[in-house]
Amino acid sequence: MLNKDTQLCISLSGRPSNIGTRFHNYLYQKLDIDFIYKAFTTNDIEAAIKGVRALGIRGCSVSMPFKESCIPFIDHLTDSAKAIDSVNTIVNDKGVLTAYNTDFLAIRQLIAENLPDNQQYVVVQGAGGMAKAVVAAFHDAGFTHLTVMARNEKNGRNLAEKYQYTYQSPEQCSPADIIVNVTPLGMSGGPDSETLAFDDALITAAKTVFDVVAFPAETPLVKRAKALGKSVISGDRVIALQALEQFALYTGVRPSDELMQEASLFSRR
Amino acid sequence: MLNKDTQLCISLSGRPSNIGTRFHNYLYQKLDIDFIYKAFTTNDIEAAIKGVRALGIRGCSVSMPFKESCIPFIDHLTDSAKAIDSVNTIVNDKGVLTAYNTDFLAIRQLIAENLPDNQQYVVVQGAGGMAKAVVAAFHDAGFTHLTVMARNEKNGRNLAEKYQYTYQSPEQCSPADIIVNVTPLGMSGGPDSETLAFDDALITAAKTVFDVVAFPAETPLVKRAKALGKSVISGDRVIALQALEQFALYTGVRPSDELMQEASLFSRR
Repeated sequence: MLNKDTQLCISLSGRPSNIGTRFHNYLYQKLDIDFIYKAFTTNDIEAAIKGVRALGIRGCSVSMPFKESCIPFIDHLTDSAKAIDSVNTIVNDKGVLTAYNTDFLAIRQLIAENLPDNQQYVVVQGAGGMAKAVVAAFHDAGFTHLTVMARNEKNGRNLAEKYQYTYQSPEQCSPADIIVNVTPLGMSGGPDSETLAFDDALITAAKTVFDVVAFPAETPLVKRAKALGKSVISGDRVIALQALEQFALYTGVRPSDELMQEASLFSRR
Repeated sequence: MLNKDTQLCISLSGRPSNIGTRFHNYLYQKLDIDFIYKAFTTNDIEAAIKGVRALGIRGCSVSMPFKESCIPFIDHLTDSAKAIDSVNTIVNDKGVLTAYNTDFLAIRQLIAENLPDNQQYVVVQGAGGMAKAVVAAFHDAGFTHLTVMARNEKNGRNLAEKYQYTYQSPEQCSPADIIVNVTPLGMSGGPDSETLAFDDALITAAKTVFDVVAFPAETPLVKRAKALGKSVISGDRVIALQALEQFALYTGVRPSDELMQEASLFSRR
């Protein structure tokens, strides 16, 4: 039963889904934490964020299309949000709003754990919001040889040049040690769910294949890379890590990997 | 389990209690309505009300000290709120905020049901926010003979003169057919919990005794009036009726008297 001291966390997105609501509430119940979580949308991001502050709503997860437009109403932008001018997590400490990007934090951690040699060559395919997080995280880890490969040349060049990296079109792309997919290629439910995100030549030449697509975890790219014996980082690990960071920022509690897995499965049922 | 479509209702007050949270959530569970309710406070009423609108929070109960200060941020003030320039209930219909005062509505209904003769003489003791609602409701019902009796002469005169009624001090007050207590005299937990709100002469002369104090329902005044065989309206009925109106405005559902009683008992446990 709710009480006056129960903490509320919310999400703000253009099209709320049930996943976050189910994920967080499942963990609150399992961990016996006096929180509730609910998805919201808004057509007034300024009033919504100021309302989060004024009502003492503890946390606010931010999705498209509010990840940049919320920034003017935040009190403190941490490095993870500053790195890509994009917020996905707001924590309210007694009226002071601090913003993070836990996607960036998750990718940075996966790079640190799995890709210690920053002299390797990297190809990142994509130029959207998540690609910005990936390129920024490689830059943060000291990688100097990185190519942004994107169908949209303008976006691709802009992203590459921000970090003095290079741009290549998908047709002319050279092989690399690490290839990263940050496009919807291979994503379930989309028009390209069966598409292999990279040419076989690029996959064969790579040492590590990193697919940020999380649904399914076993994309055509991941399957092919595993079959070729490559080192693989799959998108479900990005999702799980970013959600763990977010949960810990709101509640101060870090659930076990096992419980995170359980909550993740429950949230998608 | 909460989901993205669960409706949120909140309260805003200077010092949140658990009563409203327990009352509303109890009814939601019993009636299987997909709502949750939680008490909040704020130090920025403007941002809080604008946040209610922007987040699509379905309902907002308003208590001291926000009943007047919230008014500039409301879209439509209904007659019940206009009558006393005081809001205790805000309903959000797709971003349009409509405000009510269900205390006024409850008292007006109790007068209509119990006091059909508006030529009777009335004494209302008190000059605070609730006394404003009581005097306005008697005026609304067409009562022409009403005396505001209050220790604070300025407030008492202001309230009386707003409706061309008369003011009298507690010492000089004349008998009347209907006597109404809207002060904390007889309220449990207060310094005057044992005090009889009116002189015995006034009680004896009255036909109907109306005590707005709800805790306890059996105040010294109510007990004395019952012992003298008077017609009695007690404050627990005001509370129950105003809560019923509020619940119906938020959810569109009117619980039975029995269920309201159950929820009320549960909320105070």
